[in-house]
Amino acid sequence: MKYISILGSTGSIGTQTLDVVREHADEISVCAITGNNNIELLKKQIIEFSPKLCCVMNEEKASLLKNMLPPHTKTEILSGMEGLIAAAEYYKSEIIVTAVSGMIGLKPTVAAIKKHKTIALANKETLVTGGSYIMDLAKEYSAKILPVDSEHSAIFQSLMANSHKSINKIVLTASGGPFRGMDTEYLKNVTIADALKHPNWSMGRKITIDSATLMNKGLEVIEAKYLFDVEPEQIEVVVHPQSIIHSGVEFCDHSTIAQLGLPDMRVPIQFALFYPNRVNNSYKSLSLTEIGKLTFEKPDMNVFKCLRLAFDALKVGGTMPAVLNASNEACVSLFLNKKISFLDIGNINEKIMLHHNSVKIDSVDTILSAEEWTKRAIDEQLI
Amino acid sequence: MKYISILGSTGSIGTQTLDVVREHADEISVCAITGNNNIELLKKQIIEFSPKLCCVMNEEKASLLKNMLPPHTKTEILSGMEGLIAAAEYYKSEIIVTAVSGMIGLKPTVAAIKKHKTIALANKETLVTGGSYIMDLAKEYSAKILPVDSEHSAIFQSLMANSHKSINKIVLTASGGPFRGMDTEYLKNVTIADALKHPNWSMGRKITIDSATLMNKGLEVIEAKYLFDVEPEQIEVVVHPQSIIHSGVEFCDHSTIAQLGLPDMRVPIQFALFYPNRVNNSYKSLSLTEIGKLTFEKPDMNVFKCLRLAFDALKVGGTMPAVLNASNEACVSLFLNKKISFLDIGNINEKIMLHHNSVKIDSVDTILSAEEWTKRAIDEQLI
Repeated sequence: MKYISILGSTGSIGTQTLDVVREHADEISVCAITGNNNIELLKKQIIEFSPKLCCVMNEEKASLLKNMLPPHTKTEILSGMEGLIAAAEYYKSEIIVTAVSGMIGLKPTVAAIKKHKTIALANKETLVTGGSYIMDLAKEYSAKILPVDSEHSAIFQSLMANSHKSINKIVLTASGGPFRGMDTEYLKNVTIADALKHPNWSMGRKITIDSATLMNKGLEVIEAKYLFDVEPEQIEVVVHPQSIIHSGVEFCDHSTIAQLGLPDMRVPIQFALFYPNRVNNSYKSLSLTEIGKLTFEKPDMNVFKCLRLAFDALKVGGTMPAVLNASNEACVSLFLNKKISFLDIGNINEKIMLHHNSVKIDSVDTILSAEEWTKRAIDEQLI
Repeated sequence: MKYISILGSTGSIGTQTLDVVREHADEISVCAITGNNNIELLKKQIIEFSPKLCCVMNEEKASLLKNMLPPHTKTEILSGMEGLIAAAEYYKSEIIVTAVSGMIGLKPTVAAIKKHKTIALANKETLVTGGSYIMDLAKEYSAKILPVDSEHSAIFQSLMANSHKSINKIVLTASGGPFRGMDTEYLKNVTIADALKHPNWSMGRKITIDSATLMNKGLEVIEAKYLFDVEPEQIEVVVHPQSIIHSGVEFCDHSTIAQLGLPDMRVPIQFALFYPNRVNNSYKSLSLTEIGKLTFEKPDMNVFKCLRLAFDALKVGGTMPAVLNASNEACVSLFLNKKISFLDIGNINEKIMLHHNSVKIDSVDTILSAEEWTKRAIDEQLI
């Protein structure tokens, strides 16, 4: 039996992780779950999976949830960052699925690493903002980091039994999002509804906007650099609208190994939970002849400026990727609240980066200070 | 230093193996080479690589070669099957590249296996005709069999670090050959020149014709069954005209791992020689965005009957695949000598299989008897 905690069990990756648990109910036991506000869903999850702990970030909602549960429910209800860390550190959990969105994932991930847990990493911000600080910490505490993101899982699977040192380049595929092939003129007037129409993957609102700006791919480039210890120049982003080749690695012998499949996040989630074994499931088989055609294009980094900014941030290093991430988080929120236009996201991100003096990261506090600085800088920009 | 013998050093795979040796001259040493008739090329190879042994199958040609060599050449010149086996068994050689064409490869491969050598398998007939007999022998003598064929190398590379038991299906790609998409009516009148125009790979005449009939893919299906210990139903042939995805494996978790690259046989040859390491080379990198598009189709097994016959032969088992192979070898030769038409190849193969009573293989002699029977049966057919 594998014991797991799911940080962010009500989101897209969280609910799909529970799907995987349902498929392997006799092999995986859920010790802890956490959510922000959705106590209706948390209630259902508690009744179905009987975790030992459940954390609701919002304290009031936590009290409400307590009262909603059937009598004799044994699940302990916690709240706030303290509760989130308790879920990450829960003694019995071997694997912590970090499926929360945003920089809130940083502290519990660090806590879990320090308890030598295996991290099934779905929180982008952990490596985007923490980078080599987190990777060094994981090494120090012998904590495995297994990527859940379909692209990084694909790269991880492609690397199996191959030496990291023999990597020639990483081929990171991108669907291209809803605005693939469009120019800056077109992007001037796109609406929130347009930006939320992702062609292949069903995901949360933040990540869907990030897919439309290609910032999501930029964040994945930053993650890939730290996960697989390569130079930014070794990462090639390839737009592949069908999302069938999830990513791959070209080795020094000019042989490329890639992982393919229908777009179904349960496959990489299951892979991380059962690694290094592959186990059966009831998901759909890939038929290349049914798909018929796979296409590939270069991304336009002039139109999709956010992707270029990610490479720029990596080259600067230190707190710069954290600043880009925090700036982008704020900008997407402003865009979703109709305060700025779609193109403003990239433009503001660029301005903020120009104003930032990057410093070396030696603690989580350095990262959080960079985030604070970014928030203030954006407020100043908007005045 | 790796010591190797190359059986068939003057053919397409043989010369490309020597290219790989040139690229890694300080790491690979050629102990023995062999050829059929091309003594001009063997002479050059002897001067360049100074092997200890060289076998020319044709005895007269062997004598001629001796006289052509510069004085003080230390290479011993042998001839016939005895010489071929000496090259396969040469005490210092660790890896035997079996790049000879035809059933002549069977005996030296068995000899090398019995000397615990690693077989870099490029001779299709070994597994097509010997199947589980050869695989069992390799197991008994702890001799590794590393596939050199681009498709089987791709499958082998895709399987690295994964359990064979978790294979869902093998996706064996095929270029489709020069007659892809054509119907039986069209194939009635195709010429030798038409059939020799392969779109992607530059290979010998026999294998090029086999690519046009899809018999080559059929033989690869048979090999894959034995190399990877799967059922025929687990092998899916996918026509992929660009030959970029060289093949792949779908695992039980519905994740597919595939190996990709530009069509360059030196990559899988180098992989077999340096396995399990990947080493640098000067070959061309794959750019998916330059390729732009990969397409996939189902093969038409009614038009390309030879592929269906391969699956049929596998289902019968025993000597049936050896008979199909021998029949096909004879038919291709008849076609190249303008004795039969292109479609006759499949039709005669089918008739011969219908007349054969398959028996279990318990020695190389069983296989050679099946070949003898087939030759006689074809002669009778043609009277």
